Amino acid sequence: MTTKILFDTDPGIDDAMALFMLARDPRAELVGITTVFGNASVDTTTRNALSLRERFGIHHVPVARGAARAIVKPSSGYADFVHGQDGLGDVGTAPAENDTLDGRAAALFIIEMARRYSGELVLVPVGPLTNIAHALQIDPDLPRHVRGVVLMGGAFGTLGHGGNMSPVAEANIHGDPHAADLVATADWPVTFVGLDVTHQIRMSTAYLDEIGREGGVHGHYIRGITRFYERFYEPRTGGGIYSHDASAVACALDPSLFTLRHGPVRVVTDGIACGQTIQRLPGHPDPSPHWDGIRDQAVCVGVDSERVLREYRALF
Amino acid sequence: MTTKILFDTDPGIDDAMALFMLARDPRAELVGITTVFGNASVDTTTRNALSLRERFGIHHVPVARGAARAIVKPSSGYADFVHGQDGLGDVGTAPAENDTLDGRAAALFIIEMARRYSGELVLVPVGPLTNIAHALQIDPDLPRHVRGVVLMGGAFGTLGHGGNMSPVAEANIHGDPHAADLVATADWPVTFVGLDVTHQIRMSTAYLDEIGREGGVHGHYIRGITRFYERFYEPRTGGGIYSHDASAVACALDPSLFTLRHGPVRVVTDGIACGQTIQRLPGHPDPSPHWDGIRDQAVCVGVDSERVLREYRALF
Repeated sequence: MTTKILFDTDPGIDDAMALFMLARDPRAELVGITTVFGNASVDTTTRNALSLRERFGIHHVPVARGAARAIVKPSSGYADFVHGQDGLGDVGTAPAENDTLDGRAAALFIIEMARRYSGELVLVPVGPLTNIAHALQIDPDLPRHVRGVVLMGGAFGTLGHGGNMSPVAEANIHGDPHAADLVATADWPVTFVGLDVTHQIRMSTAYLDEIGREGGVHGHYIRGITRFYERFYEPRTGGGIYSHDASAVACALDPSLFTLRHGPVRVVTDGIACGQTIQRLPGHPDPSPHWDGIRDQAVCVGVDSERVLREYRALF
Repeated sequence: MTTKILFDTDPGIDDAMALFMLARDPRAELVGITTVFGNASVDTTTRNALSLRERFGIHHVPVARGAARAIVKPSSGYADFVHGQDGLGDVGTAPAENDTLDGRAAALFIIEMARRYSGELVLVPVGPLTNIAHALQIDPDLPRHVRGVVLMGGAFGTLGHGGNMSPVAEANIHGDPHAADLVATADWPVTFVGLDVTHQIRMSTAYLDEIGREGGVHGHYIRGITRFYERFYEPRTGGGIYSHDASAVACALDPSLFTLRHGPVRVVTDGIACGQTIQRLPGHPDPSPHWDGIRDQAVCVGVDSERVLREYRALF
């Protein structure tokens, strides 16, 4: 049984690792890729998506270009100190020979794919949620066509520490908090794969080296691009990386890897907590008008990280 | 060795329990009481402070009336469903015969007491922080005269659950978030005794009954006023109460009861997270400009609750 997935992405090193999983894992049926600003400009992330499509041999999958900026929030720049100038670790990734884009804007592409695969499609956004929010705004019926949204984003403080863009905000949500609040509060099932779990899945230097050594051409490439990313993460992990976006793909393909907590989620859109995701916990006894009437969503609060790592390794 | 304490309060049932501790504990030298809106209007909390001063036999302690409303935030009403119409559990607490107020406004009284006892005075605010913020705004030198601030307020999410005014906000901070941010970021040592620890100190029905039975006239009174409060807390505690304000007094008299975590604290002043307290944790590796340059404050994250309960019981 495969899962039809639309991947909304801002490649990005961990985006590339996640896309490889979608290209390789037999449980995934990748029906489209949409691009968005985030780790780099949308020009760069679109170029990278096309290049990775070719590199991973999924020529049949359409790529549609998406948003260049957030709905409301001004840009706070790109994460070239995490992903490199070219968004893929500056190893000289070649542009695609076939750089044909789908003619539709990402939001329209999402709407049309949701209707074509009505009831089946899982959206897996791993960057700012701007494209998904645009699609929701254009097509209020979108939620009833989509099976679910499994997104990389958010920080719910369950590990004691908080965000990576502020003490409370995770980068994807912080990139477009208004979009994230629209997605979180729409009437569809959303699963948040946030820092609470991605920070529990550490790919060590030894793990990455083995993939580079034994993982063939794709393993060699992925080990290459992760070196830049690892230099950023080293002081945070003590060696190795967090492959945030691959964790969201793992959850989309097999939620049983994760422990879920249910409750409505809102996103702070302004002020010092901008980009914070706040879930009202079950049984919260006190007033919470901003969460009233919002449907429960699922937040990942635990993970079988050994199994995630083992399954990712087995793709090579 | 006694500690000179100025108690800023909005009585309030747990405020009364805290004031009893300040009146009785030989380690406390109570030099003044200032009143503030919060659990009830400042008219009511001032009347209650005067009544409790007489009841607890601390006639020599001046009472100065303080703020009726927050610096910026409009009132969201009083907690009569927690503390009763009269703020003291509606048991018919008599007004004081001696209702003499200090002639000074609370903020001025705070400033003058801080200078009189320069280097010695500990402020213990257990309501909205409006008076303290007014004093800071009037007298920028205040911090260097004050030994420290030990306040009841805040919710830092370390127990997994959050606030009591929203999923993330505690009531005292929520009552005047702008004041709280001023107090948290001033250049003096602040200790936050928030829900993270007060929710670990449960006074059971049996504990309260014993105080009522064996605690003399004061025990009888305190057991009486806590019945109303207990009805509110019962579904939250499964029986018994959290005596939030008494926990702050316990911390002011003996910080060794608590486990402290250090880092700068900011308060969210608007939006869905309004009133949330956010501490940047030690070693936070990512950007946090709103916390940069702010001095570390102490947040209580653990407590020897058995000892707190035993010491409180021993006061009767």
